[in-house]
Amino acid sequence: MTANSKLSDVLAHIDAQRESFLHRLMDYVRHPSISAHNIGIKEVAGLLVDMLSKLGLDTQLLPTKGHPMVVARWLEAKGAPTVLLYGHYDVQPPDPLDLWHSPPFEPTIRDGRIFARGIADNKGQHIAQILAIESHLKVHGRLPCNVILLLEGEEEVGSPHIADFVREHRDLLKADLAVTADGPLPPSGRPTVKLGSRGVISFDLVVRHANRDVHSGNFGGVVPNPLWTLVHLLATMKNERGEITIDGFHDGVAAPTAEEREAAARLPLDLDEVKRSLGLARLDAPADRDYFERLCFRPTLTINGLHGGYGGPGSKTVLPHEAIAKCDIRLVAAQDTADILRKVQAHVRKHAPEVTVVSEGSGMQPSKTPITSPHLTPIREAMLAAQGVEPLIYPAGFGSLPGYAFTDILGIDHFVTPYGNADEANHAPNENLKIECFYNGIRTGAALLDKLGRAKAD
Amino acid sequence: MTANSKLSDVLAHIDAQRESFLHRLMDYVRHPSISAHNIGIKEVAGLLVDMLSKLGLDTQLLPTKGHPMVVARWLEAKGAPTVLLYGHYDVQPPDPLDLWHSPPFEPTIRDGRIFARGIADNKGQHIAQILAIESHLKVHGRLPCNVILLLEGEEEVGSPHIADFVREHRDLLKADLAVTADGPLPPSGRPTVKLGSRGVISFDLVVRHANRDVHSGNFGGVVPNPLWTLVHLLATMKNERGEITIDGFHDGVAAPTAEEREAAARLPLDLDEVKRSLGLARLDAPADRDYFERLCFRPTLTINGLHGGYGGPGSKTVLPHEAIAKCDIRLVAAQDTADILRKVQAHVRKHAPEVTVVSEGSGMQPSKTPITSPHLTPIREAMLAAQGVEPLIYPAGFGSLPGYAFTDILGIDHFVTPYGNADEANHAPNENLKIECFYNGIRTGAALLDKLGRAKAD
Repeated sequence: MTANSKLSDVLAHIDAQRESFLHRLMDYVRHPSISAHNIGIKEVAGLLVDMLSKLGLDTQLLPTKGHPMVVARWLEAKGAPTVLLYGHYDVQPPDPLDLWHSPPFEPTIRDGRIFARGIADNKGQHIAQILAIESHLKVHGRLPCNVILLLEGEEEVGSPHIADFVREHRDLLKADLAVTADGPLPPSGRPTVKLGSRGVISFDLVVRHANRDVHSGNFGGVVPNPLWTLVHLLATMKNERGEITIDGFHDGVAAPTAEEREAAARLPLDLDEVKRSLGLARLDAPADRDYFERLCFRPTLTINGLHGGYGGPGSKTVLPHEAIAKCDIRLVAAQDTADILRKVQAHVRKHAPEVTVVSEGSGMQPSKTPITSPHLTPIREAMLAAQGVEPLIYPAGFGSLPGYAFTDILGIDHFVTPYGNADEANHAPNENLKIECFYNGIRTGAALLDKLGRAKAD
Repeated sequence: MTANSKLSDVLAHIDAQRESFLHRLMDYVRHPSISAHNIGIKEVAGLLVDMLSKLGLDTQLLPTKGHPMVVARWLEAKGAPTVLLYGHYDVQPPDPLDLWHSPPFEPTIRDGRIFARGIADNKGQHIAQILAIESHLKVHGRLPCNVILLLEGEEEVGSPHIADFVREHRDLLKADLAVTADGPLPPSGRPTVKLGSRGVISFDLVVRHANRDVHSGNFGGVVPNPLWTLVHLLATMKNERGEITIDGFHDGVAAPTAEEREAAARLPLDLDEVKRSLGLARLDAPADRDYFERLCFRPTLTINGLHGGYGGPGSKTVLPHEAIAKCDIRLVAAQDTADILRKVQAHVRKHAPEVTVVSEGSGMQPSKTPITSPHLTPIREAMLAAQGVEPLIYPAGFGSLPGYAFTDILGIDHFVTPYGNADEANHAPNENLKIECFYNGIRTGAALLDKLGRAKAD
């Protein structure tokens, strides 16, 4: 048996199993596992432990201070590298429910897509990795390289315990590289590798002035308005040109290297199509930034929600007494979550000391893998083998993933290889995964193990 | 019978009827009459027509393009002046209902106050005027001066039809002066006369960018955020020093006259008590304005509510696609509602053309009566006679009332003589009226008719 036929047999097996794999995916996403509301986490972790144990992997359900981690290892490929495959089995809350066209936990197929909460983020993607492992084991009785599966139960609430967990289980997780299948592909659907991910912190800005809502006529001009306080504070944090103006915010943020710039410039982009599909008249300010510069190299400050006072029909001449702005910041490499949160707090103390910064959890550190990493070669080869197309290389990812646990704590390179369609609507109503993306994911996962098996361990 | 005994007999009658008057007030406010939701308007207008007809007044229910006006006249005091007594029988919506300690339409007495929606604004105040008329008629079979009662059914939605109504019924409403009992007294409870009222316009600022909410990681920095658009627009409309910065906003706003300044300076103020009762650490910016300057001579721009994106517990990394700010502007004399709305629209077009200004109704014009008006004398005498205290004279009122229909259309002086307690919580949960304020209102109304009867018609 030649090396190439080893992979093609596995790919043939995957093609033969399409229907049964699809049904297994749909069965899996029927089980809610909402980490924010602690719904279904234990049940879905149990499903995974059963599934992985039956495949013959050395499987453990390991506690954290929050939801448990599923770790499953197969380490019998002597001399071959070890890949840590990360995914998360928790999902976002499904609200607002009334905007779903079919119930979020009743997976429904329409137009070649499966609609369900978590179908793309991240259940459909890590189940693809698992089915790739299963297919190798079914066809050849072994894997081409060593594999450690790490499936987290609280990524959607910011992975608060993964750093401690990885530190504590350094030996259990010893690997040469880490690969995460998560997030959407670009609109073209071309296979994609992202070299790291942005970090994120979330915080609320909360302010209360009077002890009750008052009449805007009898007290307007006398009683301070918490909405005006937030408006003026927020306007000091990001100006109307779109520049974040928190003191010290950009300290240490490095300009991209020439190689990174070139890689970003090579990325295909149909800006008209992006704007059309989102119904946009323009991109966000500043206008003079390249599309991928915005997403790869620039931090962001997003107001996730702002609420205070009357919101019903018609008018109500009320002066509200409390208001809240919920925000997140996306961090790029060299920014540190704790440091940025301290800078936000200092900025608020300086500009609006009446406003309280409420921050639960420590956020997620950014993570970066050098574009010169030698592991990039087998990953590119795997994508070419599975999908017949050279992958796009993104110098940085856009979403937040706990990649820093691998790059900064384990000290290994981390690659994000999304399998989801561009319009997967993760974190939104009608989350969906194209069925073809799911199959491509299984094929790519299988090819990845094969190509890594041909590389040497570090 | 001496002139003085005529009034004292009426006041004695009022004192004897306290219990029965209180029950009639409580029966009256049991009937909801929410103009914004068109609830109970017809029923309460009917109650008033019955009540006033039975008193022997020439009573009519007159249609407008909105809710009808109740007009009741008694014009048999030959040679005496005619006073137009204005009030409104509609009330604010009672929400948020869960903050009421007793149901809003089940009047409940606690600590010497009656709690109910509309008890102070304005049912308890115009019923006091009606009971004053009734008491004169019961005791003397006639009134000391001519009276035209005008009770509106849509003051709480901005009196959209009163200007047309007054123009059309100029002859029916021909009077020498107009008096409105509405709004709260100052904290001291001293009788009060206000020389006019601020105007008001309400509008919504509405903006939508994308066609759906998106993930703040995958689209932050690319997709414009409607909350940032509103923050930056609003920050151009009023600066952090509290100065309204809409182009041309202050055009024609006259500085107060020396007499007006002196009157404002004479007004008593326990600023510590105001701050304590509202739970305030400070007054609104700008800090260098006198308390009464803020309320009498300065326009305001209030954000009544601002809403967009996620508002639930924890964090949600969403970038919202639409947002709304609901605002009102209080206008002072020389500002015109239509002109100010045009300036808001021009300002928004210039600074944030993507934002739509939505404005229902035409607002309410400001109104001003000269501090030198000769009618002020009998009004002051009436308050002294009824309550034994010289009234406070406010050069301008704070809330909005359709006084311009009298000053600007009928061309007569208009006085606001509030009967409600300072903490009446109008437009808010737990609206209430002190029972003593109610009785003082009836006595003051009775004395007003008496003192006006001694003055000559213009």
